Amino acid sequence: MRGVVMHAPGDFRVEEREDPKILHPTDAIIRLSATCVCGSDLWPYRGAEPIEGPSPIGHEYVGVVEEVGSEVRNIKPGQFVVGAFSTSDNTCENCRAGYQTSCVQREWMNAMGAQAERLRVPLADGTLVATPGTPDEDLIPSLLTASDVLGTGWFAATAAQAGPGKTVAVVGDGAVGLLGVLAAGQLGAERIIAMSRHEPRQRLAREFGATDIVTERGDAGVARIKDLTGGYGAHSVIEAVGTQESMLQAIRATRPGGHVGYVGVSHDVTLDGQELFFSHVHLHGGPAPARQYLPHLIDLIWNRKINPGKVFDLTLPLEQAAEAYRAMDERRAIKVLLKP
Amino acid sequence: MRGVVMHAPGDFRVEEREDPKILHPTDAIIRLSATCVCGSDLWPYRGAEPIEGPSPIGHEYVGVVEEVGSEVRNIKPGQFVVGAFSTSDNTCENCRAGYQTSCVQREWMNAMGAQAERLRVPLADGTLVATPGTPDEDLIPSLLTASDVLGTGWFAATAAQAGPGKTVAVVGDGAVGLLGVLAAGQLGAERIIAMSRHEPRQRLAREFGATDIVTERGDAGVARIKDLTGGYGAHSVIEAVGTQESMLQAIRATRPGGHVGYVGVSHDVTLDGQELFFSHVHLHGGPAPARQYLPHLIDLIWNRKINPGKVFDLTLPLEQAAEAYRAMDERRAIKVLLKP
Repeated sequence: MRGVVMHAPGDFRVEEREDPKILHPTDAIIRLSATCVCGSDLWPYRGAEPIEGPSPIGHEYVGVVEEVGSEVRNIKPGQFVVGAFSTSDNTCENCRAGYQTSCVQREWMNAMGAQAERLRVPLADGTLVATPGTPDEDLIPSLLTASDVLGTGWFAATAAQAGPGKTVAVVGDGAVGLLGVLAAGQLGAERIIAMSRHEPRQRLAREFGATDIVTERGDAGVARIKDLTGGYGAHSVIEAVGTQESMLQAIRATRPGGHVGYVGVSHDVTLDGQELFFSHVHLHGGPAPARQYLPHLIDLIWNRKINPGKVFDLTLPLEQAAEAYRAMDERRAIKVLLKP
Repeated sequence: MRGVVMHAPGDFRVEEREDPKILHPTDAIIRLSATCVCGSDLWPYRGAEPIEGPSPIGHEYVGVVEEVGSEVRNIKPGQFVVGAFSTSDNTCENCRAGYQTSCVQREWMNAMGAQAERLRVPLADGTLVATPGTPDEDLIPSLLTASDVLGTGWFAATAAQAGPGKTVAVVGDGAVGLLGVLAAGQLGAERIIAMSRHEPRQRLAREFGATDIVTERGDAGVARIKDLTGGYGAHSVIEAVGTQESMLQAIRATRPGGHVGYVGVSHDVTLDGQELFFSHVHLHGGPAPARQYLPHLIDLIWNRKINPGKVFDLTLPLEQAAEAYRAMDERRAIKVLLKP
């Protein structure tokens, strides 16, 4: 089958890869209807994360189940499924507490390489959720977002305790930040401030529910958020970048007692204990337990209550994955959907 | 009047200080019935915080109101009062959210120097709480703890979301950690693991509600907590020290989705963003809003439901404050009460 293989920073190719097979009785094999490039895939693409030999990549996926192992009970061949970006047994204490990305049996789907025609999904019963039927073609991009980027925005908004009466600020205007805006709106936030300097992203942020746009960054951005909130700072801040600057911007824009929900994969971030101590913020985040939210998010999408698929502003055949990476790296596209 | 003055690390003296006067119409002057030495006072005593010229110290206090400014409405001369270790107007948004230690008008009481015979308390209406009457002598140590150390333990337990069904671990066996144990018990925690290597402190921890004692520290302490919790870690961890080692011990002993409540004043702590990200813990803490808890804690003490005053294992006349500092520095005493 065809699939993306990382060779070196900037050198991601579509090649022949071995067809996946059932390796464990809890596995499923799915034929992908759509996959995509994640902002976090850009870290190795840009050389900010090591690449160990040619290796597959991709962790966002929807598709049709082709085959299941002998111990798979709930997932059946022929079903259309959405899967989380990490595997989970959905039975351990961490899963039952809603932290499936800390499942004691967790594997990252990147290792299986979802940017491909077919995919092996371990722990299929705990990782995949079937849709109520075969989706209309136009729902597929939105369902695909539930695999990671929407679930990540949702977790960020939840961790930031976005809700009624709250002013929410969102640091980062990538797909996760934009879907954090959407999530904050769905959770009932009163005011949603998107921090973005890019006109098309500002437009999408407004469409997703942003009430204010702040173009300043860093200390100036923090000052602007304070201005907009009577000097106190936002109640809830979503951090969707993962750099030192974005984390400090998020923490400093949050009022005492407020909540920072951070989901940008941390790169070279160090936090000063004393600043954190006197900030009085709540800090929570990490890899989003997308699996937790799948049933609810599939329901919202299936019933056309939300349209998160709008974050895909470019769709390419899988064969053109290299161009997809380039477009996202150069910020020509917010997020690129790949059709196997 | 007599009061403690810091001259240099290790050189804290009782001297004549000017009697406090009403400086602002919202001030009150109180005659102290008791004051004490805080673990955080040991930082400058040990040279870990700068001392700028001879300066007063002390921020824990109970006493009788002698005089109030013209704008003080609720606090009256003759009342017995407990005050928080920072001033608060109790009307700004931060105060109303329960974060009086981030009041927009906050001043640290250390600057007023509570280790003395008399004390000026700014923003008296928002900072002080009167007891239902003149307390019995034996209640005074417990009421004094509500000024800081008990409120700090209470905040830590609350920030760590100690409660029914939860396993709580407590890092630090100073007075704050011990009262964190007491608070966790009052909040209904199922299991409370005190981390301590000192027999008298272990005994007090058990008396306050600890169900388990762990003597190991650092990575070994973390491993022991994991052992005791089926490999997952504690649901709630109270950090009551403020060093790099204690913070990492707290974070690593917490299960994914669990809560760290940290109240040890951070000294040279830096947290790695990536470790925090993948830990999945909730992190919350800072200077405890003792004022928020005063009415509830006074009520518990007044009705003899709790006896937090047991943390004072040494009582000295104010004149012997230098010995009080030495005893705490050398860990000969858990906490020393000073009688002016």
